[in-house]
Amino acid sequence: MNKKTIGIIGLGLIGGSLAWALKTSTEHLVCGCDINSETLQQALKAGAIDVAVSNAANCAEMADVLILCLPVCAIPNTIQQIIPVLKPGTIISDVGSTKSYLSELVPNMLPVGVSYVGGHPMAGAERDGFMAADPNLFVGRPYVLVQSGQQDRLALQIMKELAVELGAVPVVIDADRHDAAVSKISHLPHIVAAAMVMLAAEDKERELNFSLAAAGFNDVTRIAAANPQMWVDVCLSNRANIINNLIELQHNLQNFLDKLQNKDQEALLRYFSNARMIRNSLSPAQNTGGELLADKAML
Amino acid sequence: MNKKTIGIIGLGLIGGSLAWALKTSTEHLVCGCDINSETLQQALKAGAIDVAVSNAANCAEMADVLILCLPVCAIPNTIQQIIPVLKPGTIISDVGSTKSYLSELVPNMLPVGVSYVGGHPMAGAERDGFMAADPNLFVGRPYVLVQSGQQDRLALQIMKELAVELGAVPVVIDADRHDAAVSKISHLPHIVAAAMVMLAAEDKERELNFSLAAAGFNDVTRIAAANPQMWVDVCLSNRANIINNLIELQHNLQNFLDKLQNKDQEALLRYFSNARMIRNSLSPAQNTGGELLADKAML
Repeated sequence: MNKKTIGIIGLGLIGGSLAWALKTSTEHLVCGCDINSETLQQALKAGAIDVAVSNAANCAEMADVLILCLPVCAIPNTIQQIIPVLKPGTIISDVGSTKSYLSELVPNMLPVGVSYVGGHPMAGAERDGFMAADPNLFVGRPYVLVQSGQQDRLALQIMKELAVELGAVPVVIDADRHDAAVSKISHLPHIVAAAMVMLAAEDKERELNFSLAAAGFNDVTRIAAANPQMWVDVCLSNRANIINNLIELQHNLQNFLDKLQNKDQEALLRYFSNARMIRNSLSPAQNTGGELLADKAML
Repeated sequence: MNKKTIGIIGLGLIGGSLAWALKTSTEHLVCGCDINSETLQQALKAGAIDVAVSNAANCAEMADVLILCLPVCAIPNTIQQIIPVLKPGTIISDVGSTKSYLSELVPNMLPVGVSYVGGHPMAGAERDGFMAADPNLFVGRPYVLVQSGQQDRLALQIMKELAVELGAVPVVIDADRHDAAVSKISHLPHIVAAAMVMLAAEDKERELNFSLAAAGFNDVTRIAAANPQMWVDVCLSNRANIINNLIELQHNLQNFLDKLQNKDQEALLRYFSNARMIRNSLSPAQNTGGELLADKAML
């Protein structure tokens, strides 16, 4: 790809890692924008950005590709602010954890000639902020790019190439499929991890519970430490899927409870054996699955 | 402690690690027993045991301290088999994940002069078998030892010293407190992890779900790969606590569902903020918590 100016609005964990990865692996000019001046200084000092601006419109008017790395529900407002400065040919993308909400809203907000390609790199951590950023965060990971009917093909192609330049594996799918999948493999686990942390904490034996917690509990609940506002946005913007999955999980846990009430050893053994068989089938092939799907889904 | 003969019945992940740790860190003679002759050969070859026997009674008659490293529900039968050869002064222990069931059953089975001290080293992995054993598995980890009214104080003291020799932190508590705590921090997370794996798998989009799964999902569901029969025993022998915790979890998830149905942003933010605050307060202090509790609980 020829050299472009890439604007990154929001230099948190994902935005900061994205900027840094672009600076490390590509020749593009990276313009970083954050409302926190300390974050901008950290990003400049780390060599994660070429240009630092504190105003989204200043970033937007420079950018050929503008990637909004903000909580999902903050994205429409920010786009509203930058509309006056957007020039034809600009590509708008984002890294929000849910895609249907933005895919319905954003294209209708944009001036003629400005394209929207929703994105979601499938990488993250329980920490947040630029101090947690990592230029290698996306290497080998799926990078979801949302396809839609009216979309500019060239814009999608450029975003795919950008993902490849970051070392990620582009996975082109529609917004609904993405949102249903992440509800099961990310949003539900997060909500449940939070519930289990609170269950162990809201107990007269809190101190004992946590002192005995071993690697299993730490792993299961690690994601509960992630950014709360981001997760509120995720839940509200993927509400229907999450509600369905929570109901389904409640149902499955009730089935398990019934088996345990009845001391049904065979059914309990099937339950754990089935889960083990599935879980063991996941790694390490899982990390390469994205590539196959991306090939199938290529336009 | 003066040199003893320690019998380990069952050289799986925990038994194999225990034998190996004893061989590595102490002068005790380690007699390993397993029904699988290949496992015995692996353990001998690794230097994890001094003596290999395939019969539990042969192991028991040699041992000053006999540690049964078997699924919880297999322990009473094995004790029944070895009763004829047990000599006064022998200490029987185990590493079962639940303690009340055995604490009620085992002491009444034993001949006069033979002591029972239930144990549970709080370490493990999703793998099993001797090939997954690790002599450093217990270093710095809590090692629960169960105290009870009629118990021989010297036997408990010897088990405490043994735990210290392994590099573990002895935590002396009663069986009921142990079982309530592990239900919340180990058993419930395991059951729920299995449910979430199956939810993502039993779906027409299974391939997409797993190809997009990132570190969060992998961490949350890793324990679902553990030994199924062991987990059936855990559930049956800690049934009342697990049932209570599952009901409590269902209730908490229903509360979350209601908040989401009502789009109650403030309540959702409180939910995630509370979980994050608790989760962030856990590490790294958590690994030293056991020591404090053990001091408090010392006889």
